[in-house]
Amino acid sequence: MIPGDGIGTEVMPEGIRAVEAACRKFDIDISWEWFDWSCETWLKTGRMMPEDGIEQLSKFDAVYLGAVGFPTVPDHISLWGLLIPIRREFEQYINLRPVRLFEGVSCPLANKKPGDIDFYVVRENCEGEYSDIGGRIYSGSDHEVVVQQSVFTKRGVNRVLKYAFDLAHKRPRQQLASATKSNGIIHSMPFWDECVEEMATHYPQVKVDKYHIDILTANFVNKPETYDVVVGSNLFGDILSDLGPGITGTIAIAPSANINPTGDFPSMFEPVHGSAPDIAGQGIANPIGMIWSGAMMLEHLGYPEAHDSIMRAIEETLKNSENLTPDMGGKATTAQLGETIAASI
Amino acid sequence: MIPGDGIGTEVMPEGIRAVEAACRKFDIDISWEWFDWSCETWLKTGRMMPEDGIEQLSKFDAVYLGAVGFPTVPDHISLWGLLIPIRREFEQYINLRPVRLFEGVSCPLANKKPGDIDFYVVRENCEGEYSDIGGRIYSGSDHEVVVQQSVFTKRGVNRVLKYAFDLAHKRPRQQLASATKSNGIIHSMPFWDECVEEMATHYPQVKVDKYHIDILTANFVNKPETYDVVVGSNLFGDILSDLGPGITGTIAIAPSANINPTGDFPSMFEPVHGSAPDIAGQGIANPIGMIWSGAMMLEHLGYPEAHDSIMRAIEETLKNSENLTPDMGGKATTAQLGETIAASI
Ligand SMILES: CC(C)[C@H](C(=O)O)[C@@H](O)C(=O)O
Ligand SMILES: CC(C)[C@H](C(=O)O)[C@@H](O)C(=O)O
Repeated sequence: MIPGDGIGTEVMPEGIRAVEAACRKFDIDISWEWFDWSCETWLKTGRMMPEDGIEQLSKFDAVYLGAVGFPTVPDHISLWGLLIPIRREFEQYINLRPVRLFEGVSCPLANKKPGDIDFYVVRENCEGEYSDIGGRIYSGSDHEVVVQQSVFTKRGVNRVLKYAFDLAHKRPRQQLASATKSNGIIHSMPFWDECVEEMATHYPQVKVDKYHIDILTANFVNKPETYDVVVGSNLFGDILSDLGPGITGTIAIAPSANINPTGDFPSMFEPVHGSAPDIAGQGIANPIGMIWSGAMMLEHLGYPEAHDSIMRAIEETLKNSENLTPDMGGKATTAQLGETIAASI
Repeated sequence: MIPGDGIGTEVMPEGIRAVEAACRKFDIDISWEWFDWSCETWLKTGRMMPEDGIEQLSKFDAVYLGAVGFPTVPDHISLWGLLIPIRREFEQYINLRPVRLFEGVSCPLANKKPGDIDFYVVRENCEGEYSDIGGRIYSGSDHEVVVQQSVFTKRGVNRVLKYAFDLAHKRPRQQLASATKSNGIIHSMPFWDECVEEMATHYPQVKVDKYHIDILTANFVNKPETYDVVVGSNLFGDILSDLGPGITGTIAIAPSANINPTGDFPSMFEPVHGSAPDIAGQGIANPIGMIWSGAMMLEHLGYPEAHDSIMRAIEETLKNSENLTPDMGGKATTAQLGETIAASI
């Protein structure tokens, strides 16, 4: 576990509480090691994690991460010094993010009820637009030019598509939506489309639709019930997996799994929200994103019943707004909400 | 006027009808020349427009464009053969897209009323992520690698920011939101942020907020009333200016102005929607995006009263769903809706 910064350190204990409750219930042996890697570490040592950080983590079955980021540390240092290297070095090429409308949660869309919104965003998590290739010329002058390279590989695109097709194939509706922008971004995006077409030939039962990212964001608002599994590049998956929780009113409770499907390296589980410096230190952060991520971790480690018991506890708890933190209209503290869920497990 | 393809050719006559009605009312002299440049032209000649197309257009005060795109013509041919070169050769570096919730339009968001959503997206329109720099190696093999370059220049970023700050400064709330993704895209996006900070020093009255694109899309859904002027790169502006109309239920009526603020070259006015092959040929396309774009054209050419009279006519017409095309719950044809608006002007 890497609690990280800000509310990361506040929601982590509640995540652990829930995971341990589920482990007790199903007789699962679990043990934790704590890593204090964070922006504070960087301010003290100039590194977000030790030089052998990746090696240290590699002997674990999973990484459970709170949130990283601090106002006085540039994002591209905190994130490219910790989060992104973990995703990449461990080839966690899948970022899986469920989007679901729950009973008890007030939805910003008109006339939607639980069941209407229930899909997965499968995000490519290792390459694409998030590249450190690029740089500047004529820095600081009026003639400054900055280039930024995106890199897409056949292997990289195919492996995320395969995961997304497999997931779609397992679901009752078997629908896959792919997000590109091949009319504007004319090298990488048509390539992605070609890979989708080729992969589709191996999954005749899966219904595939290709969307441009612009209209897809509008569709998330106007017809979210259309979507079942949505696959996109690192950047497009990032956008869609914030907008998704956005349309269900649940950014604070959204989880994510950074998965290495081969099992060669540990996978990482973290809430979608960040370190939220504006509310940090008050004990009012919503721990559900952390807890739900813990459920995904247990499922990934081979304990689906433990996952399900946490999800049932979350669903039950959400029904009563008195249980909830202020962001969801309640008055509970982080710890109180975490205790309610753990008790319900 | 370049009607283009699909419903572009159907909504164009209604755009002209409205513009001419406003010109008659305010005694404005207007004349049109018709260009049949389209995917059909490409299928016949291998070019979307003649070799001297840009030169031909350069003697006009404005370009009025319907929509381009045809199922059998790859998007990167139709768009990079016509739309994108016009935007670039004429240095139409502003893509201005108003987002407004109207009375009579059913909003997909819960509890929003006209007035709650009223902002502009200012999109960089000449550089950035839409670049034809890049290519492939090991084509067609399992080792294929595709690179795609984004290019941002100080001049390019500063000129769109200046326009956006000026626009924000003129509006009562004086708020500017800037969209980046500087935690993930670490060369170009921090550069954009720096340019924003520098430009902000010249506009002390304008309140500036920087957002990451992912959370900004969620905010459009959860608190659209926050936004006044939103500025973003070519790609982020594209996404936000589809999501914007998406949250107001009005993709079909959204307009856009591709502006060259120096006046050295003509500006171009076009609806946000595309050629919509699925409904083309039925006479049911909604012409309001085209008509509203015509109003923006008249405003740009120096006739604000003509713009206002078209906008009043659109607003009045929207109040009664019987006036509207099927996409907005009415039964009117394209021509009937166009006639209602023209009569109301
Ligand atoms: C058709 C496409 C290239 C275009 C764009 O992305 O610029 C369109 O989506 C738009 O917004 O005008
Ligand atoms: C913090 C940032 C780099 C990160 C990302 O964009 O990947 C975050 O937004 C996420 O979605 O996990």
